[in-house]
Amino acid sequence: MEQLTVVKIGGNVIDDPAALTRFLTAFAGLPGTKILIHGGGKVATQVAEKLGIQTTMVNGRRITDQSMLNVVTMVYGGLVNKQIVAKLQTLDINAIGLTGADAGTVLAHKRPVKDVDYGMVGDIDEVDSGRIQAFLREELTPVFAPLTYSKTGDLLNTNADTMASAVAVDMVRHNEVTLVYCFEKKGVLSNPDDDNSVMPDLTPAVYDEHKAAGTINKGMIPKLDNAFQALRSGVSRVVICHADELATAVIHGAGTTLTL
Amino acid sequence: MEQLTVVKIGGNVIDDPAALTRFLTAFAGLPGTKILIHGGGKVATQVAEKLGIQTTMVNGRRITDQSMLNVVTMVYGGLVNKQIVAKLQTLDINAIGLTGADAGTVLAHKRPVKDVDYGMVGDIDEVDSGRIQAFLREELTPVFAPLTYSKTGDLLNTNADTMASAVAVDMVRHNEVTLVYCFEKKGVLSNPDDDNSVMPDLTPAVYDEHKAAGTINKGMIPKLDNAFQALRSGVSRVVICHADELATAVIHGAGTTLTL
Repeated sequence: MEQLTVVKIGGNVIDDPAALTRFLTAFAGLPGTKILIHGGGKVATQVAEKLGIQTTMVNGRRITDQSMLNVVTMVYGGLVNKQIVAKLQTLDINAIGLTGADAGTVLAHKRPVKDVDYGMVGDIDEVDSGRIQAFLREELTPVFAPLTYSKTGDLLNTNADTMASAVAVDMVRHNEVTLVYCFEKKGVLSNPDDDNSVMPDLTPAVYDEHKAAGTINKGMIPKLDNAFQALRSGVSRVVICHADELATAVIHGAGTTLTL
Repeated sequence: MEQLTVVKIGGNVIDDPAALTRFLTAFAGLPGTKILIHGGGKVATQVAEKLGIQTTMVNGRRITDQSMLNVVTMVYGGLVNKQIVAKLQTLDINAIGLTGADAGTVLAHKRPVKDVDYGMVGDIDEVDSGRIQAFLREELTPVFAPLTYSKTGDLLNTNADTMASAVAVDMVRHNEVTLVYCFEKKGVLSNPDDDNSVMPDLTPAVYDEHKAAGTINKGMIPKLDNAFQALRSGVSRVVICHADELATAVIHGAGTTLTL
């Protein structure tokens, strides 16, 4: 089976042109087929602020009314996505920028209102992995912005980590998949106050211990839940690493590798 | 040879949700394969204004510094493009939104400075019609935002009429192409003060007469120059019509049909 690397890159790197260039250069150098999913949260908040639109976050998720949806559509689907695509083209990567609406790749529904009304936020129903596989076969490298669409034609703001794992899991039908979450830490830390306390490996049992002890902090919990779920769903390897260590992490020399 | 319809829709319709819905419904109903190129100028100007960025037009072209480029990238490549794609999905059209950077479809270079420094504006060098044809064969409907990219990784603001004719002309390699420019008039008018004075047909000779008499106004001249050039380059039919008459114009019952 073909090897595929699915990489998710977060907002901190996107906000920093030098860091983004370093990251995209490493991404471009990865062997085999690959897919990039990007975030972009800070840029969206900045643009929203300039437009007089307030940002409200609940449980780490952005409340997305129609005005905010327009902002994230512009920023994620337009500005960040196309800048990344144009940059990758200079690195000889034939990138194709996509939201879930494009070629119907990632279908979702508007999250039902329970405790919190998040607004125009999508929970993913279906990934068209056959379509994505066809792009890979045509030597295109998909670059996904964290937006999906619904059957009724709404664009929906979608969590980038969740989108990365949904895509990775569906691509298991066609590939041996490695899923890499890149962010601003060197991996999952055993001591949240020591940036060098990277755990090279992490199992569900050890994760549970750290959760109970409170040493894995709140922001990491949804990320790790997503990551372990991806492993249970057939993704061969899940790695969490610093954006600057992508190349090394993929060959299992950096970051935290999750195992069941 | 396959029939292909390339349609360009302008900003006035894009600004008006009801008109846009009518137009996209008609576009979705066109027989055979099709490509849409959209503008979006007014939305960009409005967003720019809210962000405190001034719009300057010279000879009908937007002066595009880096701030303005970010705005058009967000608005054309993000907001307008993805709203259109999501809407077309509900009309059973498997739309794929693209800028020229995506899949390397439309390569350009930054316009050299002569009398006027337009800034980050692109003049088209190459269309990858093979790639676009592959999308059509996979039953995707490309929806282009008027942005291109350069070999050095710049995104470039590009005239939507020019992009439409460049794409149409290159697709002649693979298809019999009809190119339709939709806008807010019923066609090319023989009397600029009479909105009903549509000329059903227009040849270069009659065009020249009207230019000399001043009855074809300035805004129409680049549009018609582009259109006649497309005909000379092998596009089978070029039609200029009102956005609400797209379906009829395509079967040669409305608007102005250009012939050599």
